[in-house]
This record gives sequence, structure tokens and C-alpha cells, in this order.
Amino acid sequence: MASLLPKSYRFAGVQCGLKPGADKLDLALVVSDQPANAAGVYTQNRVFAAPVAWDRSRTPGENFRAVMINSGNANACTGDRGLRDVAESTRLVGRAVQSLSDQVLVMSTGVIGRFLPMDALARGIQDAAGDLAADAAALSRAAMAIMTTDTVPKCASRSGTIGGVEITVCGVCKGAAMIGPHMATMLALLMTDAAIAPANLQETLSDVVDETFNCISVDGHVSTNDTVLLLANGAVGGPSLTGANLNSFQELLRQTCAELARMIPADGEGATHLIEINVAGCKTRDAARQIARSVADSPLVKTAIHGADPNWGRIISAAGYAGIEFDPAGVDLDLNGFALCRLGAPVGFDAAAVSQSMRDHRETNILLQFREGHAGIRFWTADLTAEYVHLNADYTT
Amino acid sequence: MASLLPKSYRFAGVQCGLKPGADKLDLALVVSDQPANAAGVYTQNRVFAAPVAWDRSRTPGENFRAVMINSGNANACTGDRGLRDVAESTRLVGRAVQSLSDQVLVMSTGVIGRFLPMDALARGIQDAAGDLAADAAALSRAAMAIMTTDTVPKCASRSGTIGGVEITVCGVCKGAAMIGPHMATMLALLMTDAAIAPANLQETLSDVVDETFNCISVDGHVSTNDTVLLLANGAVGGPSLTGANLNSFQELLRQTCAELARMIPADGEGATHLIEINVAGCKTRDAARQIARSVADSPLVKTAIHGADPNWGRIISAAGYAGIEFDPAGVDLDLNGFALCRLGAPVGFDAAAVSQSMRDHRETNILLQFREGHAGIRFWTADLTAEYVHLNADYTT
Repeated sequence: MASLLPKSYRFAGVQCGLKPGADKLDLALVVSDQPANAAGVYTQNRVFAAPVAWDRSRTPGENFRAVMINSGNANACTGDRGLRDVAESTRLVGRAVQSLSDQVLVMSTGVIGRFLPMDALARGIQDAAGDLAADAAALSRAAMAIMTTDTVPKCASRSGTIGGVEITVCGVCKGAAMIGPHMATMLALLMTDAAIAPANLQETLSDVVDETFNCISVDGHVSTNDTVLLLANGAVGGPSLTGANLNSFQELLRQTCAELARMIPADGEGATHLIEINVAGCKTRDAARQIARSVADSPLVKTAIHGADPNWGRIISAAGYAGIEFDPAGVDLDLNGFALCRLGAPVGFDAAAVSQSMRDHRETNILLQFREGHAGIRFWTADLTAEYVHLNADYTT
Repeated sequence: MASLLPKSYRFAGVQCGLKPGADKLDLALVVSDQPANAAGVYTQNRVFAAPVAWDRSRTPGENFRAVMINSGNANACTGDRGLRDVAESTRLVGRAVQSLSDQVLVMSTGVIGRFLPMDALARGIQDAAGDLAADAAALSRAAMAIMTTDTVPKCASRSGTIGGVEITVCGVCKGAAMIGPHMATMLALLMTDAAIAPANLQETLSDVVDETFNCISVDGHVSTNDTVLLLANGAVGGPSLTGANLNSFQELLRQTCAELARMIPADGEGATHLIEINVAGCKTRDAARQIARSVADSPLVKTAIHGADPNWGRIISAAGYAGIEFDPAGVDLDLNGFALCRLGAPVGFDAAAVSQSMRDHRETNILLQFREGHAGIRFWTADLTAEYVHLNADYTT
């Protein structure tokens, strides 16, 4: 759990009956006591949830006071009624925390294609507003309330002195399946007490998401609800950050987001291995990411790693159908530090030793080096196990 | 098994030790006693196997006499030595059947990244040449020799009277995983006794593959070895087919290829359901295919169907990240004939009845209708089961 909290934020996590199970928290509320600027990055899925529509039309922007997040229901594929339910939710939150609808942002996660039970939600909003507190225990309850099949709550924070002032960035996120962000990500809420103008806030967030939340995958299925929000309430005082100070802030944010992003595949449904894929020697970072994503999403690569099987042809061939031009005779591949392939052809290696290393470590490291350029990326995913199948063969019924 | 055989072809399937297991056939040889024209469609993977390089540079073409197919070793990611091994294989086949290297085409399937054991292959080629026969039993042995994790050999044939002459098309194929053809397909060999000029043969094959082998997927992993070859030896006599006669032939070929293509996901590794996805109302056939493929390759869709779970939000959201523009408020979805979604929003349906229908039938039918245009496609895939994970977690070691 994060122990560093940004100034002037309060948190709550309550149960209102959106999730089956007697003791499951399912509604989180975060309030900034000072109006905050906000930036957002959203799913690129053509089918996007009602709360995504609401937030996307309002960020980047200023003067926000609250973010409500519910689990147990995605409010996606719910048509006009879904949009009306979001508007009503923000009205209820606004009334509970003495602000306007337009000062409230919303995120939802859970089953697609069901209408929100608004009575339950209204009770939850009331309870949460009465429960707000500015301590780590309250943040932890909020992090638990946004979980779906996550097995652990996910928080991270960083502090640093920027321009002579101690600034804190803190975030929570959720996700364990339907993780295949594409220029977007899963649900994550980042909060800082720095002062940053909306346009700078958006640019900083977009850059950071591009190399953190956009570099993870569990099953390659892009969610309808993916959202990352960043609030900056300026509670530390002083002018808005710019120039080198903004860069320093971006580094704090990058570290926080990288820690959170990595937690998602590490907690991937049924996962027994966190897989880190380093792709180097590409023409552009996007090309490297596309290759990494193709490797990450191959069921044959994921099952081989689950089986501690150094079946490297599956990795190379997955790179080959990523849609990126490269010379197959210029590819090197290492797995957990063992050289498996040089210049596209087999090298003699001790398969038993590589396999043992995969069994001994929960993290498997793949290094794919091309000879096309100087750009690279780091990408994280999970292996594919029978447990993933069991968990997903019977989720709604 | 196919009972109709085209004239002037002989077949063999033998064991030469490429596959582990005492009684596994692993080398198939097909000889056309009259020189045949040949067309081919190949993998679009940037990493392609040595036999693909050989065949691709020779088709469309004429004067072919033999096709050799081995299982147990893909001869992919094998560098220059892989190319030399193909040249040597074709020399050995040519010598065994009294033809030239350049009259021989080759296909390989199996583990990636290992060199072919040429001594074993040489013995196998000798044995196969001595074993050639023009009967269904010999074709059946050839079909068995190209299997990897397939549980059944896959043959199909059609006959028809075209231009007053009885013409036969017959084919064999293999595939149960690493199936995600992209403008290409798995290993398939089609043979006809019709006379068709190389350019027409290629155009006919490419058209047919586009709506058959290019409309299947098991795990979305595009193989390095995907190849479809079509031989036409003209043994029925008469001039080369053109115009309406060529169209009639194309329909025979389409039926044969559709039957073969469907067999692959039906025999998908660990599969308990064959999933047929019909996408309608798109602007173009390629757009429809891209949406179908996105749905077909989603692990969340595949596991839901395995679990007989009518979790339709997974299907709609997979369509949404296919990269095709559409209006989410114009989407209808039916599953096994039950209406689940109309105009992008939920309709009341009997979830228990839909689930029971999915349990009762090995084939699940998805119908996705858009309101963007008039193009559609039919696509086949398999569900994702724990057995798929087990089979693939330990394939090489």
C-alpha cells in the first residue's frame, strides 16, 4: 500500500450491492478539497462505456472536485439509458459533496450490457460521502472497491522536491483480464498536489501512459471502459509547474504509473508468470510496441512460458506477424539471459537449464533485438493458464 | 475420407523418424504422372520457413511433378542451412520420381528452429517413392503423414461435369493450432485433373482461399509455414478452362476448400465448440473479416463459449477494437438464433435457455449485424479450453 498521500484529497470505499458477495466493496469516492485540474486517457474501442463518454468530453479541464468509481457493472452497451445513469450519478455525487455535476468524473468496471441499479448506487454514494477520510486506510478501501477479479488492491506513490516544494503523486488502479490497452489503459486514478495547467497535465499524462499502461496486456481484449485520470489540485501552493519542473514531475508520474501498470499483468487472471518483453533495435517506439504486443498476445507464447518451455520459435514467429517490416536474419533472442537465437538461426543452448530458470522465477524476461534502428520498448504481460480458462468460462452466469 | 480421386495422381505416406512415436507417419509424397500447373498462397509472416521461400518463387508455374510434405519439423528459423536442406530435399525427390528439382514443391510443419535430419528424410523419400499408389488408402496415408496435433486426417473432394467432362478436385490439409491465417493459410494441397493455365489457376485459388482458409482461426498465431498449393494436371484432356467453365471449377474448388477449412477449427487443439461467426452489414468484405477475426481471437469470447456463457458484451467489445469504424448504436447480435442485443443495447433474453443451447450443440453460431453497408463474411474458430493450455504448455520439451 502507498504510504505517501498528496495533500487535500479524501477517499472512501463502501459496499452498495453492485457485486455479488456479502462483503465486497464496490463503490469508491475520491474528493479533492481544492478544485483540481484533470487530464484523461481513454479506450480506443469503438464501443465505449457511458462513463468514458462523460469524462472524455470534460478533460483536459479544471475545477473538478470528485471522482466516483464503481465495480460490478461496466455501464457499457447500455445505450441512452447508460448515459442518463451517468448524468444522474454525477448529480448525486455533486449533491453529496457540495459541488456541481460538471465537477464530477466517473469510471465503471464490471459486466458489460447491464443497466446500473441506480437505487443501490444512490445509497452507496451517500455512504461513501459520509465515510471520506484523508488517510491510507481510506485510500486502501477505495482501491479495494474498484477491484473486479483482481486478487490484490493496487496502489503506488512517489514524492519528490520540485521547485523547492515537496510534491506527491499517488495512484490506484485495477485490472486482471480484458487487458489489451491500445493508446489507452485500464482504470487508474492518479492524484497529485502539484499545480499543473490542464494542457500540460494532459500532455504529461499522455506521454507517461504511452510507456506504462499502454505497455501491458493480459489477453489482448481491449476493454470498453479503459480510463486513466490524473488530478492535480495544486494544494502545495505555488505557480503551475513548467519546463524542468514539469519534467521532474513527469518522472515522478512515470515511476508511479510504471509500478501500477506492472501490477496488472502480475495479478493477471490465473497467471503464474509475469512476462517482461524488451524489444530493441527497431525503427520507432511504436514499431517496437507492436512487436512486443504481438508476442505478448500469442496464446502459444503464453502457454509455452506457463509450461517453462523455451520454445523460442513461437516468440520469433509472433514477432513476424506483428505487421512490422524487419529482416528475419537480423534477429537475436534471449530468454532469462540465455541466448536462444542469433541472426535468426538456432544456437546450441541448454534447454533443461533455461526451463529450470523459468520454473525458478515468477518473472520471465524476453529480450528481442532487431537490426533496424535504435528504438525500443518494455512491455509486460502474463502467461496463459488453465486457471484463466476456468475463471473466464463462467463469469456472468 | 475423400472417395473421389482426380486422374493421374499417386500418393504415399510413410514414417521416417521426424516425429516422436513408434508408429507416426511423417512424410507424404504426391506425384502427378502428367506435368501439372501449380498455384500457391503463402503465409504473410515476415519470418517464413525455407520451403515457403522455395515454393513462392516457383508459383504460379507449370511442369510440376511432385509435392513432398513432412511433419515433425517446420524447417523455419533455420537460416541458410534450411534453404540448402530444401534444395537437397527436392533433388532427392526428383531423383526418386524421375524428375528435376525444379519440378518439386515442398511443405513442412512441426517444431520451429531445428534443422531437418536429412538422413532420415532421404530414407523417407526413397520409401515413399516405392510406396506410391493411386487409391484412397494411399491418399489417406498421405493425409495422416502431414498431421501434427490434428486428431483426424482431413480430406475432401468434389466432382462435376464441366464443358462435358467429369472433373475432380481433391484436397488434404492439416492444422489444429498456430492457426491465424492472414491472406494465407495452413498446409493444404489441392489437386485437380482439370486443365487450367497458371495465371487463371492462381487467380482462382487466391479468390477461393480468401473466403475459406483465410476465414479460420484457432489461436490467431500466424504460422511461418502456411501454404496452400493447387495442382492442375489436365489429365481429363481438353483445352484449358476459361470463362464460365473456369467459374464452374472455382465453385467446385470453393466447396472443397470450405469443407477442409472448417475441419481445422473443428479439430482445434482441445476444442469443445466449433464457432461460426457470421458478420453482415459491413462496408467491405475485408472489414467484415477483420471484425470476425477480432471476435474469433478474443480469449474472453472463446472461454465464454467454452463455458456455455452468453456473455455477449465480450463479443460486442471485441468487434469494437477490430480497427473498423461502425456505429455502436447500430449493432444487433444473435447467438444460436437467440436475440441478445438490438441497436447496441440489451434485450431481455432467457440466459438459461441460451446457455443450454450452447451446451447441447458442438457448433455455436454468432450473428453480428451492422448497419454500415452490405458486405459480410463467414468465419470459423474454436473455443479456448484448459486442454489447449495443457497441450501447448509442454510441446517441445
